[in-house]
Amino acid sequence: MAIAACLNAPTRLKKLMTEFRYELLATDGKARLGRIHTAHGVIDTPAFMPVGTAATVKGMLPENVADTGAQILLGNTYHLMLRPGAERIARLGGLHKFMNWDKPILTDSGGYQVMSLSKLRKITEDGVTFKSHIDGRKFALSPERSMEIQHLLGSTITMAFDECTPFPATEQQAADSMRMSMRWAKRSKDAFVNREGYALYGIQQGSVFENLRRESSEKLTELDLPGHSVGGLAVGEGQQIMFDTLDFCVDMLPANKPRYLMGVGKPSDLVGAVMRGIDQFDCVLPTRSGRNAQGFTHRGTLNLKNGRHRDDDRPLDDQCNCPACTKYSRAYLHHLIKAGEILGAVLLTWHNLAYYQDLMADMREAIAEGRMDAFARDFHAAQEGGDIDPMPIIED
Amino acid sequence: MAIAACLNAPTRLKKLMTEFRYELLATDGKARLGRIHTAHGVIDTPAFMPVGTAATVKGMLPENVADTGAQILLGNTYHLMLRPGAERIARLGGLHKFMNWDKPILTDSGGYQVMSLSKLRKITEDGVTFKSHIDGRKFALSPERSMEIQHLLGSTITMAFDECTPFPATEQQAADSMRMSMRWAKRSKDAFVNREGYALYGIQQGSVFENLRRESSEKLTELDLPGHSVGGLAVGEGQQIMFDTLDFCVDMLPANKPRYLMGVGKPSDLVGAVMRGIDQFDCVLPTRSGRNAQGFTHRGTLNLKNGRHRDDDRPLDDQCNCPACTKYSRAYLHHLIKAGEILGAVLLTWHNLAYYQDLMADMREAIAEGRMDAFARDFHAAQEGGDIDPMPIIED
Repeated sequence: MAIAACLNAPTRLKKLMTEFRYELLATDGKARLGRIHTAHGVIDTPAFMPVGTAATVKGMLPENVADTGAQILLGNTYHLMLRPGAERIARLGGLHKFMNWDKPILTDSGGYQVMSLSKLRKITEDGVTFKSHIDGRKFALSPERSMEIQHLLGSTITMAFDECTPFPATEQQAADSMRMSMRWAKRSKDAFVNREGYALYGIQQGSVFENLRRESSEKLTELDLPGHSVGGLAVGEGQQIMFDTLDFCVDMLPANKPRYLMGVGKPSDLVGAVMRGIDQFDCVLPTRSGRNAQGFTHRGTLNLKNGRHRDDDRPLDDQCNCPACTKYSRAYLHHLIKAGEILGAVLLTWHNLAYYQDLMADMREAIAEGRMDAFARDFHAAQEGGDIDPMPIIED
Repeated sequence: MAIAACLNAPTRLKKLMTEFRYELLATDGKARLGRIHTAHGVIDTPAFMPVGTAATVKGMLPENVADTGAQILLGNTYHLMLRPGAERIARLGGLHKFMNWDKPILTDSGGYQVMSLSKLRKITEDGVTFKSHIDGRKFALSPERSMEIQHLLGSTITMAFDECTPFPATEQQAADSMRMSMRWAKRSKDAFVNREGYALYGIQQGSVFENLRRESSEKLTELDLPGHSVGGLAVGEGQQIMFDTLDFCVDMLPANKPRYLMGVGKPSDLVGAVMRGIDQFDCVLPTRSGRNAQGFTHRGTLNLKNGRHRDDDRPLDDQCNCPACTKYSRAYLHHLIKAGEILGAVLLTWHNLAYYQDLMADMREAIAEGRMDAFARDFHAAQEGGDIDPMPIIED
């Protein structure tokens, strides 16, 4: 009996390890501490997912992205289908192998970038046709093709194909758009090839309208998908409207599954959204800002191009343990940026990713200890307190 | 007595460790295996020094440059004096601390870049005045100011201030230029602040004229400097004339001191120059080529932008252990380059630096084992053999 149980253990363990599931560990108000188990490993939530648009987190080696604490990356279906092509990546062994990242990868459905980047797009009930922003070649995306591409890429978490309703939209526009996305979600589910440890997330739409968000949630809940995202926010509505919408729309999604807020955001967005029950985030902000001389710190956001840093031998953020902060001065980072050196973009990107991961880890700790409110108060006070006083500039 | 000897040991050891000296370990024909001891550590020779123009080896973290095997970097006086300024770097703790590199640094004298990059330059016996290529500000360089700047930077190896004689030059032009450089070498020595483990190198000039190279060497030998370089080559004369000149000019320099060939070169240049007695090299080629899609391999130089690599899942160079070759395919490198991704430049730079360091390590081993001729034959055969056959391209 005891021997049989032992012999059986590896099988049960494997089952536990590879089944896709969300484990809720603690709550503090609406904030949730959790863990997502996937075929490619565990994701501690709330989690921030760095964006690896074109099979690379811009400027970073994947092992260094992992060093910052990232446990999952986001890849863009739109970019990868255009270049180098999903079939090509599949022949080369899938996206994980192609870009040398063995932890989970979430891919978006391509819909958002079709709307924001492509030319001459045409939307019908069937899907979207568009021309590539790179070379004008014609492409098509539909729920079925998006599922196929994400399958070819080998995504751990596949996103349903949807239309991101623009803001502002009338209630009628938002309803029509949301209902088409829900029909597309059903087609996405039908086309999705289920594999142990992999998942398809449905995307809630409905703009800022509570009744539409509810209708969307009900339709998604019927599909019984392993995770959900809140779509159609962070599209220009501003933080207050985003928070007001999250106040009612997050609770509508099943509590036993992860909830992902797409394309968000600034550090204060993350804090506010975690307090409203969000578990996953992605945003280009830390990486894009890193290439544009911006550094996120515990004392707010700094522009390292500013001459005030020219003679400053202090670290960018004295509370950060990343290489940019422990091995270099603000003066050096400023110099690299002024000289247009690649290393400036690399170090600031690294720092920003580390800052974001530290923020998530701090929030997870605060939720575990039931002090998320106090954490948020301290966070805002420090951000508003502003940077340390500048060092005197010396003209030679 | 025994106890006294023990107590004394650390002092003697420290003395041995910090004194700047060249140790000749073996010869094979004219090729020399050696070791340079400096205040910042040991340099195994023949050595290749990656170029860290503006206080960064472009695209690389310094720890990763060290990972390739580099034991010394080169910094450019001209670039650093203009931006961020030598006095500023000194206030920030010196170049080593500023750029987070604790091994030896060699700085050039600034003379070469003044000639190739600056505007409205004017040369007199005293020195050079010029306008910055960055913002047009006026600067001056002289033997004394060059020594001061290199001292402010904290260079392990300082180069004498010289004029790099252009090619072609008449014998009279070459003689006049060389003699001024020799007067400047004397002034450089007088201005150089000697410190334990640091060194000033003199630069041999004389273009392709044997009598002038001899005269230059004699004048430098009188100064009794701890090292020498061969200047005025790799300035457009081509490999054959460079080798023909090295055939006579290297032996003229004292054999008990290191000999450094400035600004060289291609892999085949390095092999030929090592066989003519050169111990140190620097060149932007591996780093600049890395940013321009070029990869140096055991089978010759490849352009990774070429579509032939698009579906190639094989490594760039199967004999290389760098991350670009062990973790990624040619198809991925090609994709990064086509997409204009920073990581493409980073990985190819890393590979090229690893290739150069591996080449130097292989030559050191060949010299130690007395088979440098055979090594050179095999090297040329492999280079001329060309790349592996391309993989079929699949059009989607």
